[in-house]
Amino acid sequence: MIIVMKPQAAESSITAIKEYIEGSGLNAHLSQGTEVTIIGVVGDKSRLSTENLISFKDVDRIVPVTETYKLANKKFHPEPSVVQVGPTVIGPDNLTIMAGPCAVETQEQLMSIAHAVKAAGATILRGGAYKPRTSPYSFQGLEEEGLRYMQEAKKETGLATICEVVSNEAIEAAVKYVDMIQIGARNMQNFILLKEAGRSGLPVLLKRGLSATIDEWLNAAEYIIAEGNPNVVLCERGIRTFETTTRNTLDLSAVPVLKEKTHLPVIVDPSHATGVYKYVSPLAKAAVACGADGLMIEVHNDPAHALSDGPQSLTFEKFARLTEELTPYARLAGRTFR
Amino acid sequence: MIIVMKPQAAESSITAIKEYIEGSGLNAHLSQGTEVTIIGVVGDKSRLSTENLISFKDVDRIVPVTETYKLANKKFHPEPSVVQVGPTVIGPDNLTIMAGPCAVETQEQLMSIAHAVKAAGATILRGGAYKPRTSPYSFQGLEEEGLRYMQEAKKETGLATICEVVSNEAIEAAVKYVDMIQIGARNMQNFILLKEAGRSGLPVLLKRGLSATIDEWLNAAEYIIAEGNPNVVLCERGIRTFETTTRNTLDLSAVPVLKEKTHLPVIVDPSHATGVYKYVSPLAKAAVACGADGLMIEVHNDPAHALSDGPQSLTFEKFARLTEELTPYARLAGRTFR
Amino acid sequence: MIIVMKPQAAESSITAIKEYIEGSGLNAHLSQGTEVTIIGVVGDKSRLSTENLISFKDVDRIVPVTETYKLANKKFHPEPSVVQVGPTVIGPDNLTIMAGPCAVETQEQLMSIAHAVKAAGATILRGGAYKPRTSPYSFQGLEEEGLRYMQEAKKETGLATICEVVSNEAIEAAVKYVDMIQIGARNMQNFILLKEAGRSGLPVLLKRGLSATIDEWLNAAEYIIAEGNPNVVLCERGIRTFETTTRNTLDLSAVPVLKEKTHLPVIVDPSHATGVYKYVSPLAKAAVACGADGLMIEVHNDPAHALSDGPQSLTFEKFARLTEELTPYARLAGRTFR
Amino acid sequence: MIIVMKPQAAESSITAIKEYIEGSGLNAHLSQGTEVTIIGVVGDKSRLSTENLISFKDVDRIVPVTETYKLANKKFHPEPSVVQVGPTVIGPDNLTIMAGPCAVETQEQLMSIAHAVKAAGATILRGGAYKPRTSPYSFQGLEEEGLRYMQEAKKETGLATICEVVSNEAIEAAVKYVDMIQIGARNMQNFILLKEAGRSGLPVLLKRGLSATIDEWLNAAEYIIAEGNPNVVLCERGIRTFETTTRNTLDLSAVPVLKEKTHLPVIVDPSHATGVYKYVSPLAKAAVACGADGLMIEVHNDPAHALSDGPQSLTFEKFARLTEELTPYARLAGRTFR
Repeated sequence: MIIVMKPQAAESSITAIKEYIEGSGLNAHLSQGTEVTIIGVVGDKSRLSTENLISFKDVDRIVPVTETYKLANKKFHPEPSVVQVGPTVIGPDNLTIMAGPCAVETQEQLMSIAHAVKAAGATILRGGAYKPRTSPYSFQGLEEEGLRYMQEAKKETGLATICEVVSNEAIEAAVKYVDMIQIGARNMQNFILLKEAGRSGLPVLLKRGLSATIDEWLNAAEYIIAEGNPNVVLCERGIRTFETTTRNTLDLSAVPVLKEKTHLPVIVDPSHATGVYKYVSPLAKAAVACGADGLMIEVHNDPAHALSDGPQSLTFEKFARLTEELTPYARLAGRTFR
Repeated sequence: MIIVMKPQAAESSITAIKEYIEGSGLNAHLSQGTEVTIIGVVGDKSRLSTENLISFKDVDRIVPVTETYKLANKKFHPEPSVVQVGPTVIGPDNLTIMAGPCAVETQEQLMSIAHAVKAAGATILRGGAYKPRTSPYSFQGLEEEGLRYMQEAKKETGLATICEVVSNEAIEAAVKYVDMIQIGARNMQNFILLKEAGRSGLPVLLKRGLSATIDEWLNAAEYIIAEGNPNVVLCERGIRTFETTTRNTLDLSAVPVLKEKTHLPVIVDPSHATGVYKYVSPLAKAAVACGADGLMIEVHNDPAHALSDGPQSLTFEKFARLTEELTPYARLAGRTFR
Repeated sequence: MIIVMKPQAAESSITAIKEYIEGSGLNAHLSQGTEVTIIGVVGDKSRLSTENLISFKDVDRIVPVTETYKLANKKFHPEPSVVQVGPTVIGPDNLTIMAGPCAVETQEQLMSIAHAVKAAGATILRGGAYKPRTSPYSFQGLEEEGLRYMQEAKKETGLATICEVVSNEAIEAAVKYVDMIQIGARNMQNFILLKEAGRSGLPVLLKRGLSATIDEWLNAAEYIIAEGNPNVVLCERGIRTFETTTRNTLDLSAVPVLKEKTHLPVIVDPSHATGVYKYVSPLAKAAVACGADGLMIEVHNDPAHALSDGPQSLTFEKFARLTEELTPYARLAGRTFR
Repeated sequence: MIIVMKPQAAESSITAIKEYIEGSGLNAHLSQGTEVTIIGVVGDKSRLSTENLISFKDVDRIVPVTETYKLANKKFHPEPSVVQVGPTVIGPDNLTIMAGPCAVETQEQLMSIAHAVKAAGATILRGGAYKPRTSPYSFQGLEEEGLRYMQEAKKETGLATICEVVSNEAIEAAVKYVDMIQIGARNMQNFILLKEAGRSGLPVLLKRGLSATIDEWLNAAEYIIAEGNPNVVLCERGIRTFETTTRNTLDLSAVPVLKEKTHLPVIVDPSHATGVYKYVSPLAKAAVACGADGLMIEVHNDPAHALSDGPQSLTFEKFARLTEELTPYARLAGRTFR
């Protein structure tokens, strides 16, 4: 941590800070410039409420030097992680497609979709049983019944399964039925849920919050890993900006940035990011081209009558064409697919 | 709801939509322009998955006409609400100051702060016992012990009390000790928590999400009210933008916008919005000047050694000066204060 | 400037940077921590292309320590500036109201507005003669003819006058007719125009760019002052965010932030910020309450038929009521008004 | 255009609007719902200051139905445009790489870069001679001398050339020396410059403004085309968001969105978008994968000593590797390259 003093900071102000730092068992390292003095803090910073130093006299700015996340940090774990999900793995050697409906609606619907996405190359079936919806009057999901359908679909197709969880109760239920749980964007900083997910034993897909910085996202992952669960996969799903032609703005630069900062796998969800089915295919290819380990795609047997997110769902035919077109991109990226 | 068709939309596309709408028991009302046709949907729209219509052929855009929140909507409840919190009320006739430490640290700390903020005119004591922190390694709060200190402080000073809750367990505990619960920005769309808060019977302070639109915020309030709890107060606390000189960007225009859209009281938190104690006082005055029903201010006996958010906390002396200076602003706004 | 090295940076990498810095005639000051090494650069940084150091081996981050703007910087000019505009002044002792139509439409319109705003307490008449419009098919202004009407209005009422300029030609014309020129948000980083405005000799109102940081804004002011024109006034007019109930998000925290960073006067334009006349009055009061030196308000004789920005314009009656209501706020802020 | 009335709008309010519309020679089309009435406006809307209708009594909202840009609109020009730039073309059949230094520094520098980028497959040489810089004290470019070096480089290598222009004077100079002019992000709504670029006769690369919506961007293109110059190419270069690990957030969804809304070619600049050379290559591939017609890449002989934007520039070796890797992506996208 670096403390930048104001120009003409009083000698007494510098001394006060030095004493505060040393009183916390750390070392202060002064660097006197022509315009300003900077103070480097050396030692175990967790012993110091560092942000408070900003309220000391003549302090201009505090500059953190090291990241607060450690277990998610590539600096301390340079090799890319591989996460086992049921019978499949997410990691650097293959391209994983998670596909399925936004919401599980009926067993027949789910089964038909499961067969279709498997045929097209998906290895993980997604399906929402607990739906966080903006309005309390929108369809909120089938809950445990939906999870049972997911289990049935798994039995019949052999696909691994993933479901979003929104509460400790949902996690307890999910553990019985599915292979991976998902923490949605609106819960990315629901720290209680993150800890519980960490204790669940299941691999966790952690979606980026609507306006989460990459640093906050990795700290959220740290919450899960710190509970003893290293099986975290990150999912970029668009961030909130002023642009309105897409529901969110897909931040694909997050993929190479994450590849530099963390060893965790990264997948991309172009369906939720854009909210428009026509944009899903070009952005899916782009995600693979810039290094994503996988994709999450919404597929529905009848988008026009879907109970949730119909506009962004692909039909079976469009999804099959997409995975066909993705095949050479996976090969260029050095990844096994289909 | 209005459906805007593309130019040169086929007659058959228009017919298909008309049939879909009428098949849902609603009426379609056509308006044929020189360039485009628009279709108005008349009737109870909850019977229709309206967003799916975007995937029909030749549809250009769907324009919602009515808000999805009803109970929070001023259109159906024109009089401003008054919310009772312990011995005090939040509403159009008075200016309510909630003040206290970001985090409850010790009983002595809390008690000294409680006396100081009461002396300066606060009527509600704030104090965090469950702290949602970006990093899992930061101080996370005293939990139930902290709530007990809040109860003690209430007994000794007569102040009403408010605490943030982050889980159903925290709500259950809070009900025993404090007068009002707070849902923080990171949990604004934690719908499980919103519903539980709605069932708690306590008045709820609902902070705006980091990048929540006003429409989403009012829908979140609707979740609470729909559980039978009309005692919701909204708290503007800054939104996320590109500007970095303040931690968030305080959106004071939200105050008059909310006054037009909802009957719920609105308070402003300049401490969390700016993250810098020096900016708290001018923005507190501005909040009162533009119509806020109250303020939430962080006050600490020793900001330099606070375990959380020291840089934005006011000392006792600065807080006393602020409430002194606020008095004529409250009078200009036609509000009782002190 | 501080260079933060990566953990385990090679000795040779550190040496390479040290040599590069010293080769530029500056001093490098090493601070070896347990995890990372930081290098402080001491001397006249303009001799070094500092950003390039990021491409050196093992460099993690570059942290600038001093601001690039000097003439606009309060550190080197602690006293607040006072800017003379025709017969009036903008500065810490009074509250200046600039009011008038978005666009000058006819001489009669402008004259009637000029009389009305003067009667209500405005001292500067605003009126657009060169209109930067999103679409090329919208009304673009009366140009020099509009400036002449402004001059006439000044003669008849004694009001000072301000007009936006969009080109060197517009500046040349403006110099002949008005007392102050305005650089609009879309031209805040039109550096050619800034330099020409600096050479014009007229005081300049510099609006904040649509997504300009405060640092960029002050650097833009620096362009004007560096040409020998210290008479710059800053105008906060809302920034671009995801919120859509207002046209932009008025960033009132910019007022106290600017008061800390610069000596230049700051005024606030709630009309352009919100785009809605109903929100102008509460935000105007808030602006004064948080320390603004003045306001820019759109007033129109017939908003429903205005050629530009009718929705955000106040009628004469509403404007008169606003200035009446502002009077005690000005007094509380210690400013002379009316 | 659609006017949405408030619930319980008075009959007289509806009549007033109807009369205003019909008084402008247009037709009003009423649609009376159970909750609200909507009024469709039919006819040539340019005859009506439509936004003013919001200030009429009982109006809730105005919803525009048609875009204001016509010449840039794919609805009226379905075939993708092909733009000739010196000896090369930008369009749907090939992948165009523009490469070169951020700023032209010396003739030797430019020549060595020109040879290197040509050898690697670039067909257009970029190089800034007029540099818009945040601070007035940063290097501002060689101006006309820089343009002459560009002309020399063209003669020697046969590459087409592009230069940013920042003023009418720069356009006049550029016409003499280069094949294409560029309007930078900070000037995207410098409408005077857009018009002059439209009259220059040269093809124009129009970068997206720092926080420009796609709609505003296409309206800016309309300014150029409306002057009789249809040779406009759009360049996505990142937008401003809260994320700080990249300088801007590259909005790749803009590529498929633009492909749906306009016939103009679209290129992507990953160098300025990210500001970090390491992220250029993955995002360049992503841009091609999602349908971009070309790329703009910064290349420098010695990034560590570049006078501008060194951190984001590729070395010759890295650039050659990138174009090598891009080749199969171009083939997959059905584009000719190298």
